[in-house]
Amino acid sequence: MKNIISLFILMTFAFGIGQVQRVEPPYWWTGMKNTELQLLVHGNQISELQPEFLPNIPIKKIEKTENPNYLFITVDTKSVQPGTIKIKFKKGRRTISSVDYRFLERREGSANRKGFDSSDVIYLLMPDRFANGDTSNDSHPKTIEMADRSQQGGRHGGDIQGIIDHLDYIDELGATTLWSTPLTLDNEKTYSYHGYACSDLYQMDPRYGSNEDFARLTEALHQRGMKHIMDYVPNHWGLSNWLIQDLPAQDWLHYWEGGENGFKRSNYIQTTQLDPNASKYDAKGCMDGWFDYTMPDMNESNPMVINYLVQNTIWWIESANLDGMRVDTYPYNDKVGITEWVTRVMEEYPNLNIVGEVFMHETAHIAFWQKDSKIGAIQGFNSNLPSVMDFPLHDIFPQVFNQSEQNWGDGLFKVYDHLTQDFLYPNINNLLIMMGNHDVNRINQAFDGDVNKYKLAITLLATLRGIPQIYYGDEIGMLGEKSKGDGDIRRDFPGGWPSDPQNAFLESGRTDGQKAYFDYTKKLLNWRKTKSVIHKGKTLHFSPMDNVYVYFRYFPENPNDAVMVVLNNSLKDQQIDLARFTEGIQNHQSGTNVITGQDIGLDKSLEIKSKSSLVLDLN
Amino acid sequence: MKNIISLFILMTFAFGIGQVQRVEPPYWWTGMKNTELQLLVHGNQISELQPEFLPNIPIKKIEKTENPNYLFITVDTKSVQPGTIKIKFKKGRRTISSVDYRFLERREGSANRKGFDSSDVIYLLMPDRFANGDTSNDSHPKTIEMADRSQQGGRHGGDIQGIIDHLDYIDELGATTLWSTPLTLDNEKTYSYHGYACSDLYQMDPRYGSNEDFARLTEALHQRGMKHIMDYVPNHWGLSNWLIQDLPAQDWLHYWEGGENGFKRSNYIQTTQLDPNASKYDAKGCMDGWFDYTMPDMNESNPMVINYLVQNTIWWIESANLDGMRVDTYPYNDKVGITEWVTRVMEEYPNLNIVGEVFMHETAHIAFWQKDSKIGAIQGFNSNLPSVMDFPLHDIFPQVFNQSEQNWGDGLFKVYDHLTQDFLYPNINNLLIMMGNHDVNRINQAFDGDVNKYKLAITLLATLRGIPQIYYGDEIGMLGEKSKGDGDIRRDFPGGWPSDPQNAFLESGRTDGQKAYFDYTKKLLNWRKTKSVIHKGKTLHFSPMDNVYVYFRYFPENPNDAVMVVLNNSLKDQQIDLARFTEGIQNHQSGTNVITGQDIGLDKSLEIKSKSSLVLDLN
Repeated sequence: MKNIISLFILMTFAFGIGQVQRVEPPYWWTGMKNTELQLLVHGNQISELQPEFLPNIPIKKIEKTENPNYLFITVDTKSVQPGTIKIKFKKGRRTISSVDYRFLERREGSANRKGFDSSDVIYLLMPDRFANGDTSNDSHPKTIEMADRSQQGGRHGGDIQGIIDHLDYIDELGATTLWSTPLTLDNEKTYSYHGYACSDLYQMDPRYGSNEDFARLTEALHQRGMKHIMDYVPNHWGLSNWLIQDLPAQDWLHYWEGGENGFKRSNYIQTTQLDPNASKYDAKGCMDGWFDYTMPDMNESNPMVINYLVQNTIWWIESANLDGMRVDTYPYNDKVGITEWVTRVMEEYPNLNIVGEVFMHETAHIAFWQKDSKIGAIQGFNSNLPSVMDFPLHDIFPQVFNQSEQNWGDGLFKVYDHLTQDFLYPNINNLLIMMGNHDVNRINQAFDGDVNKYKLAITLLATLRGIPQIYYGDEIGMLGEKSKGDGDIRRDFPGGWPSDPQNAFLESGRTDGQKAYFDYTKKLLNWRKTKSVIHKGKTLHFSPMDNVYVYFRYFPENPNDAVMVVLNNSLKDQQIDLARFTEGIQNHQSGTNVITGQDIGLDKSLEIKSKSSLVLDLN
Repeated sequence: MKNIISLFILMTFAFGIGQVQRVEPPYWWTGMKNTELQLLVHGNQISELQPEFLPNIPIKKIEKTENPNYLFITVDTKSVQPGTIKIKFKKGRRTISSVDYRFLERREGSANRKGFDSSDVIYLLMPDRFANGDTSNDSHPKTIEMADRSQQGGRHGGDIQGIIDHLDYIDELGATTLWSTPLTLDNEKTYSYHGYACSDLYQMDPRYGSNEDFARLTEALHQRGMKHIMDYVPNHWGLSNWLIQDLPAQDWLHYWEGGENGFKRSNYIQTTQLDPNASKYDAKGCMDGWFDYTMPDMNESNPMVINYLVQNTIWWIESANLDGMRVDTYPYNDKVGITEWVTRVMEEYPNLNIVGEVFMHETAHIAFWQKDSKIGAIQGFNSNLPSVMDFPLHDIFPQVFNQSEQNWGDGLFKVYDHLTQDFLYPNINNLLIMMGNHDVNRINQAFDGDVNKYKLAITLLATLRGIPQIYYGDEIGMLGEKSKGDGDIRRDFPGGWPSDPQNAFLESGRTDGQKAYFDYTKKLLNWRKTKSVIHKGKTLHFSPMDNVYVYFRYFPENPNDAVMVVLNNSLKDQQIDLARFTEGIQNHQSGTNVITGQDIGLDKSLEIKSKSSLVLDLN
């Protein structure tokens, strides 16, 4: 914290008194549902000055904090027309400084934008490791860390242009929605590529591109009918964040006496948020501890912090025309504060979708966090968070397909057992499901590169309830071991760099091995796009026998639209007696294999090869 | 089923027409809340006859089934006085037969009897394997299987008298409540010792003793202020049960076409009871399948079956003056039927306790089954079952104390994590908790005979929320491996047989090893008897650090009554800084070690030896 204080003293002398350094949000819109807008004005000793708007806007409140460099001006924008207004900062009658402030006309239909949902498949990528579309910005004069592709934890040069350049690839694969890990400025000295230590919540990292590039990415996605999810990090910012460096008030973050820079690491015990037996000591240790040394923990019980986050979120949704948010480390946030954040964002966009990273391992614990949860209600809590992630499903993926012997509770039984808790979720379709992400072992590493295990796994993922999320490169069999460092599970996509010897983005560039992964995934995901029974249907499942698991997706009111999935996780080819499945097969005579297009009769029995699956569109 | 039909034909000729073989319940009481009583009358062609009561009782309904040997007479007992009445069975004016039927005066306060609760510790034993108090009944002329102590799965001769003879021992240990596995007649040819294949729901097995002996056991327990729980099995009866052999109607049990005797084994997938994704095929396979070849599955969707079970249960509670029931294989029962059963029993005894064996492994799944469960309510279900068993806690016991290294999620973290789901239960205190029972590996086997691990485990069990249940012999370190057969985890208690070379019931007979187990357990359980904060207090726990777990039991409204528990599961002696625990320690200056009586200061730090625990009564 000593650093922060010295910097503050430095600033006092560095800039002329009353000069406005920043106004945030940098611009705003007319026609918002919530017409209240709080402007954060930052400038040397700005708090001594009196703001004046030309033309006039009703000022509802002027707030000052213990740091004289801040002024928080709450205005009512109800009567504001699109255009630029002037804000003067006066001392008595004297205007010390003035800034222009723009109000844009809100995009038509913006309030009703529809978020991602279970009809989508999300493609998650790390922008630094996906594709380098603009080599000129690999390093940047305004940011500290320089590109160095030889370092596992260094910046490799991937960027927004690289993503835009390869939307063909993602689209062809059959993913419909992009989630990139954070692209906002992360100006830490090292490991800045991951982007989770944000230095400026209103600015893209120039090594990834500009704010305009970010909006252009959405535009390019929308042109393809695809969607764009932003990765949002309300819980912690980067140590180098300008607001941390010149804190409006000490109570904007959780400062720990005794720790260097106020640092105390979180105990990561997220259950303290919902466990009535938990000590306050542990709860505080989780929620107020820092996620890492470079990530000061924001105090979200401070309404000013929440308000800053809400406006920042809305600003990105409007300015980059987003289709949803993914929220980092959700249960590390202050429970009340983050609920206010999500509630206010959802009030502005009632049809948006927001998915929280609730990285817990008990279904009941995760269900607690979904909007209208009956489990949350036991404690009088309603998160208002529409979507959560099915980490317990993720946890069993490697186990399931590595267990070819049928022992009670093993192999596919784990999936069957897992689904028996589905009813704990208030909205089972709004559940993000995945085999992996940027924080865990690569799934194909767990499968030791066995494409048949991958095919079984992706078949499951693509046909279960929820919103499947693919982690970049899994679809071409990329490997990576968490134990070798995060960089190993975040390897560069082959072909993303001009100098790459191989280009897996193009069919002609893929190895036969990669083709086997890609072609199967592509077939499956493209089929899934229009299968509303997969998106919204109910599930009917049968307990695995001989390591074969059969389930159906169906509409009770429309028996014609139904899908049958058969997973043979055993090491032997099998003949399956169909008599057991009449509830699911009903009057269907045959099913079309969605991979081969072949029709398969369903009168008596079914053949299925070892370690393979059948997805049948029932006819 | 062919056997059953032949037997039926046989009976028709064996007895004179109209001769009453049985009336059930064999007697009843006046002053019951539910004054309706259904008499099952069994006799050759009895259904052709007309019953007449002297003195008259209002007959509300006479029901016949497809089997002419049964007559079900529902009477209203409201006006009945204690004494004997005559029931005549007439054909026209002619009396073909008559029986006397007794109404006893109900025991005073019977309706308000208080069941076992969290102030109790339950001692579970298998009567055949505990103590042989009467060698003259080891085999019996009226039962098939003869005593053979040399057989692991044979009858060894233990009996009710043996239990009565050793109540001193159980009492001294500090257990307050007895649960014996079933004592009712099990007349199967083999493995009859376990008692779960009942041949007569109104009769004790003569190799255990008489119905009067059973009531005498309660009486002996009550004289010591102890309680008696009966093990009840509504889901399945024995194949040799007289009612199965001469079924009132085919729909009294689940008969499977094609199976020998109608046998089809249950698939044991209990989740089908609550999983909305489950197929009817699987649900039926669980609920209607037979628990074993000798255990036909009762059809509890048949109201007559439920009524028979309800009256039988009430009959035992009244006649043997019981304090509660333990119900076998609870989720295998028809959900609606068993709910009616428990509801009606609890209506008759609102303060009784009934614990269901819900042998599942997810806390949410078990919580589903407890009365007023919010999880049950998601599906509009309320079991009305007051108490369930914490099997997930049981599952982790061996793991926890065998993991001495602190890895994330391992060792004592498993206990901490487990307790984070406590809030899913509507009544956390009415949860039976145990390290083992007659169906699983002996806990001391899992600990490889390490008494220190046992002491840690029993300390946890005795100080957690819920009702601890001890499995006979664990308190003297008995071993047994499930993989070697059920008999191995059900070994004879040493000293229970006159010829035994050692008598561990007596202090003088115990080895030093046994003493170490027994003395510690005795100290702990006897201390627990009067510790209401352990019975009813809340829990405050701190996440384990360095493999040391600290929790408190406390009353928010009475800070003077509090207990601090420290478990050191690591291999090193530790000095614990107490600053972290001020929320729990509050103003207490010291704590009394409940095992040694020593006072320990709580100002700065605490010493605790490797693999040991401290239970401190806070002063």
